[in-house]
Amino acid sequence: MEFKISKDFIAQIEQYISENREEQLVALLEDIHFADIAEIMGELDSSEASYLFHILDSEKTAEILLELDEEVREKILKDLSPKEIAEELDELSTDDAADIIAELPEDKKGEVIQELVDAEHAKDIVELLRYDEDTAGGLMGKELVKVNENWNVLTCVREMRVQAENVQRVHSIYVVDDEGRLKGRLSLKDLLVTSTKTPISEVYIPKVDYVKVTTPDVEVARIMQKYDLEAIPVVDELGRLVGRITIDDIVDVIKEEADKDYQLAAGISQDVEADDSILELTRARLPWLILALLGGFVTVKVMGIFEPAMKNHGELFFFTPLIAAMAGNVGVQSSAIIVQGLANNSISGSLFSRLVKEVLLTLLNGSILALILILGSHFLLDVSYEVGLTVSVSLVSVIVIASLIGTFVPILLNKVGVDPALATGPFITTSNDICGILIYFSIAKAILGF
Amino acid sequence: MEFKISKDFIAQIEQYISENREEQLVALLEDIHFADIAEIMGELDSSEASYLFHILDSEKTAEILLELDEEVREKILKDLSPKEIAEELDELSTDDAADIIAELPEDKKGEVIQELVDAEHAKDIVELLRYDEDTAGGLMGKELVKVNENWNVLTCVREMRVQAENVQRVHSIYVVDDEGRLKGRLSLKDLLVTSTKTPISEVYIPKVDYVKVTTPDVEVARIMQKYDLEAIPVVDELGRLVGRITIDDIVDVIKEEADKDYQLAAGISQDVEADDSILELTRARLPWLILALLGGFVTVKVMGIFEPAMKNHGELFFFTPLIAAMAGNVGVQSSAIIVQGLANNSISGSLFSRLVKEVLLTLLNGSILALILILGSHFLLDVSYEVGLTVSVSLVSVIVIASLIGTFVPILLNKVGVDPALATGPFITTSNDICGILIYFSIAKAILGF
Repeated sequence: MEFKISKDFIAQIEQYISENREEQLVALLEDIHFADIAEIMGELDSSEASYLFHILDSEKTAEILLELDEEVREKILKDLSPKEIAEELDELSTDDAADIIAELPEDKKGEVIQELVDAEHAKDIVELLRYDEDTAGGLMGKELVKVNENWNVLTCVREMRVQAENVQRVHSIYVVDDEGRLKGRLSLKDLLVTSTKTPISEVYIPKVDYVKVTTPDVEVARIMQKYDLEAIPVVDELGRLVGRITIDDIVDVIKEEADKDYQLAAGISQDVEADDSILELTRARLPWLILALLGGFVTVKVMGIFEPAMKNHGELFFFTPLIAAMAGNVGVQSSAIIVQGLANNSISGSLFSRLVKEVLLTLLNGSILALILILGSHFLLDVSYEVGLTVSVSLVSVIVIASLIGTFVPILLNKVGVDPALATGPFITTSNDICGILIYFSIAKAILGF
Repeated sequence: MEFKISKDFIAQIEQYISENREEQLVALLEDIHFADIAEIMGELDSSEASYLFHILDSEKTAEILLELDEEVREKILKDLSPKEIAEELDELSTDDAADIIAELPEDKKGEVIQELVDAEHAKDIVELLRYDEDTAGGLMGKELVKVNENWNVLTCVREMRVQAENVQRVHSIYVVDDEGRLKGRLSLKDLLVTSTKTPISEVYIPKVDYVKVTTPDVEVARIMQKYDLEAIPVVDELGRLVGRITIDDIVDVIKEEADKDYQLAAGISQDVEADDSILELTRARLPWLILALLGGFVTVKVMGIFEPAMKNHGELFFFTPLIAAMAGNVGVQSSAIIVQGLANNSISGSLFSRLVKEVLLTLLNGSILALILILGSHFLLDVSYEVGLTVSVSLVSVIVIASLIGTFVPILLNKVGVDPALATGPFITTSNDICGILIYFSIAKAILGF
């Protein structure tokens, strides 16, 4: 069951803090999960959060630190000495500790590392800091259980008991050779059901999925999802086992990747949250708005060309937002489907067959929309039959073009190595606005001859 | 390492199939992971896929069945007798088997269940079919390792060895009382490092997260993510342990939920893929396009009201797509941030402070955009200073309103229990188009007095 954080509970905590009632606070928070305490600290102001942090157990605070929003964490770390931070990190696994050190200001990093008590832990953390955060190396932790292929199960179980002390969750037991090269794995289940006298070389599974330290994180996520893995070993250039990645780290990668695509589609170019500062939000949003504004300038210019139509067919101009909106919507629909297909690796067939399909689909949708438009413009909008027909013909043409742009721009971007999600959102709507209006007036001119 | 499916490899397989070379095919596919074979079968036509399916081991085909795209699976299942399907399902875990049965036509379901060999397995599957697929009950599997609180570790280990035979991955050992009610858990690690003589009641952890069978799947995902769980037990109304959900099932829920939000934002209302049929794609896309078209009718009407402006200030009409586009973009940006915040539970603070922040943010962005617009309309667009100023003032007003609509519509929808992601995409752009154009011309009329 989950603990629900109520306003009353927060108020209670704030009151205790203001009254300096340490004991009551500790008692109140004793049975509460660190993820919930982190959430509570996010609701408090930063001095209150710092106060809470200082009165809690270091075993608990280390985990809380990990769960906090980056901003809150930054504020709390600022108030801590390098020694205090090191004490927190000693409680954490290597990958989590390395992630927190990576967030520290440059000068503080070294100081904190020097203060780490466990030399082995410190060495592992320093090694992890070397890797790019978007690679398997940046994701992996050093905590794993490994056994030598030359041991027997008895030695193995004894060794594992020692190793398991440092490992929070034992996923797999990896088998290495004398040079530390990954040879295979033992499953925990095998261990439960196999007699302890069997030699390792007879029971280990030589086939094991692995990734290299340089494999990109999204690729690791794809492999683990595809092969339904809960943990995957990471090897270096020489094939030596250097770490492991667990599924919970991958859940975050998957979530972030999906969120990023969604944000790009909405015209937000950085990972921002509702609670970020106005300046951060502006940096993520303004560039796209400027792009859209410049695109708008072009539509103004395009319409200027067709100004002569205003004399006899002024009502044509009333339809420009409608045409632009339909082009934008169709374009975004097409591109979103392709972007997801590319992300999920689920697009098959040739470019040509996709083109045919997209055109057929849009013609089908377009015919229904054109019918509604002809009837609507006649009965609801008071425009001549001639103009209604003109707008309908244009609408179909415009959305066919928009769907083709929406389909092929992401594919093209993907081919040249640019994130195709860039092609959704403002980019596609702006270019479709321009194309759409140009096509619309050109067709109108051809039909109505202004 | 991952296996890459090349075109040559597919061609090779197709050739072997056409030449009926069973042995070579089996040899070729022997070392290939079932997820990869499923992918290969997705590339073949359905008779080829069926052929492959029939020549492979039933141990492998059951897993392949699970990994196939729904469409391909449907075709293959059609060719199999109830007995053959039951044989596949006997190889699968209860939750996977139940998912596949749920996809079968009604009349075939019963026939397949009757053919299941293992009575216990069949009973579990039938139980799972009772639950709604979007709940914890629909996600959970029956395979778990449970021990009685009254046992000692020795009995426990012996019992576990038996139970573990049926469990692919042992995540946690759950502790129940004589009535089967969940009391706590034992970690595998505890088991590795504890002496076998200890009584269970002394070593088990009485605090255990759990969900109910009726808990919605997205809620389960949120809890497992928040508390970093790899498995969670599921209890019935009486608190009895009835199943467990593992993180790999949750990964799919998280992915689907994120994909769904993205699709809604792009105006796609059902879970469709690029390779779905034209009719399915139309069903998902057309309703939004019709909504946008009807919204477009309203913009035509609104502009009709301001037709008199055309005589002296026709250029005002050139700016309508620009105004509509900016309103749409700002609205979608605002709503996307709120929708993600709601989905991730990361929105704090009062409505009022959010309102103030959103207005300040948009005023900042708006001032920069207005400046660009004034300069641009003067130097690039050939419109009078008066019109440029009018458009700029309107632009700022329009995007402030759009950002407020974009912020508060999702919050409102969320309050009344509607998926806030509905408020992104066509819904928000259409209403912002209408509001935007109305505000624009009203302000223009006030300033220019046509």
